[in-house]
Amino acid sequence: MKVFTAIQEIRTHICERKQQGEMVGFVPTMGALHEGHFSLMAQALKENDAVVVSIFVNPLQFGPDEDYEAYPRTLDADLEKAEARGVDIVFAPSAAEMYPEEMQTGVHVHEGTDVLCGKSRPGHFDGVATVVLKLLQIVQPARAYFGQKDAQQAAVLTNMARDFNLPAEIVTGPTVREPDGLALSSRNVNLTSVERREAVWLYEGLKQGALWIEEGSYGPGDILKKAKHTVEANISGTIDYMDILTYPGLKPVKEWNGQVIIAGAVQFSGARLIDNIIVSPGQKERVGR
Amino acid sequence: MKVFTAIQEIRTHICERKQQGEMVGFVPTMGALHEGHFSLMAQALKENDAVVVSIFVNPLQFGPDEDYEAYPRTLDADLEKAEARGVDIVFAPSAAEMYPEEMQTGVHVHEGTDVLCGKSRPGHFDGVATVVLKLLQIVQPARAYFGQKDAQQAAVLTNMARDFNLPAEIVTGPTVREPDGLALSSRNVNLTSVERREAVWLYEGLKQGALWIEEGSYGPGDILKKAKHTVEANISGTIDYMDILTYPGLKPVKEWNGQVIIAGAVQFSGARLIDNIIVSPGQKERVGR
Repeated sequence: MKVFTAIQEIRTHICERKQQGEMVGFVPTMGALHEGHFSLMAQALKENDAVVVSIFVNPLQFGPDEDYEAYPRTLDADLEKAEARGVDIVFAPSAAEMYPEEMQTGVHVHEGTDVLCGKSRPGHFDGVATVVLKLLQIVQPARAYFGQKDAQQAAVLTNMARDFNLPAEIVTGPTVREPDGLALSSRNVNLTSVERREAVWLYEGLKQGALWIEEGSYGPGDILKKAKHTVEANISGTIDYMDILTYPGLKPVKEWNGQVIIAGAVQFSGARLIDNIIVSPGQKERVGR
Repeated sequence: MKVFTAIQEIRTHICERKQQGEMVGFVPTMGALHEGHFSLMAQALKENDAVVVSIFVNPLQFGPDEDYEAYPRTLDADLEKAEARGVDIVFAPSAAEMYPEEMQTGVHVHEGTDVLCGKSRPGHFDGVATVVLKLLQIVQPARAYFGQKDAQQAAVLTNMARDFNLPAEIVTGPTVREPDGLALSSRNVNLTSVERREAVWLYEGLKQGALWIEEGSYGPGDILKKAKHTVEANISGTIDYMDILTYPGLKPVKEWNGQVIIAGAVQFSGARLIDNIIVSPGQKERVGR
């Protein structure tokens, strides 16, 4: 496995591999790799000739009061794990390599950022879209892989790829969970042991909501009220949001018609966790009762 | 010469040519081709194996009260001229091909847009940067060529390429002028014959200012006052702006130290014209007297 920290060097290396006819898949990460990332890497390895993983905690997507400093950084362990999984190339640049001077240009996401995480994290998706655009220009892959756990991120990046005519295909891989159902996240290591036991209730509340959506007897407002109650009753943290929106459009649900997402975020003492379930409502006629 | 209107088709064709080892140069235009464009094409033909010219009047960079409808469109003549100049490939998409649905993502230029044209054309450079990013993703050239006449555009795009790690090199070619000195522009055809004779005074005013900058005896404020007076005294149109800024930084000039740009814009009845000169001040010690 080759490890690069310099943009110019990884560019040259990938260019050579592409000239040999290799199709490149790309898994961008912020490190602290877990089974969720490995699942994306396995899919990328199956669908491409060579797989590049980037490890970069992107300052641009963290707000001033967010956990940029506390975000787990475990580069040596990450490199070992990536190599063991058969990754061909790792790109682990410094912040100075990615942002050598103040950015005079950025990606701005006009739509779909006034809901879910976008509401409480202003500028977050602009920062995500900007760094992903940069990484895609550096790596120039045929496909780039993102997890469904970050559903809004996947939607924003899929839209960006379409809007900017990016040559890379954006692929979304399924959420990987702990045995008790907690969605894997690099931030889970920042939970206390009590919070770790409570954390599964976010998923429990979403599952409960998803069942009611499938059943179709209640409107979104009633379902959210019940699901929020389930979560609130079982955690010491606070709910940042819980919402039901069309998917992938992320618009308010007016009738049970087409796919929806039920998504939530919970703030614990040292970590903010998010999760979601995509649901196809069963009985759209009975909405709102 | 091959002409494409569909993104997928030109992508496939360029991909084949690159696989044959050809280096692709790209000249994006809004059509109504003139010697300014031909000069960029000649440079691109010299420096690359194949040259792509795009012809697309980009609605995203025109404000609601600007001349999108009146902008000259002469596709058949443009194709003949491009072929005669040895261009290999023309990309002439419709607005529906470039913007099939509402854009949810755009490029935002944070810096250098509160001066010169950016001041009176809010959103203009966001629109320019967005369409150029899209075109660069479609054509994927080694080099893209822009005219020095649109100096602020060249600066914004050079910054964008650096900020987004775009693989293409942004090349700036010199301004081409009529025998009397008027900078070539597709908009010149929208001048009345009286305005056409007056129009050269924009360049005359800039030249006068450039001489005083080189001479170094006066400060920027005094020089602009004199240059504006020269222009105003000789045209029926109105001055939109005249300014002296550092170049390429586009910041206020505090001392005659390093390259500066003296630039102006004049609004005539049916056309807004811009022009500029890059100057290296001679005697920086004597600034502000």
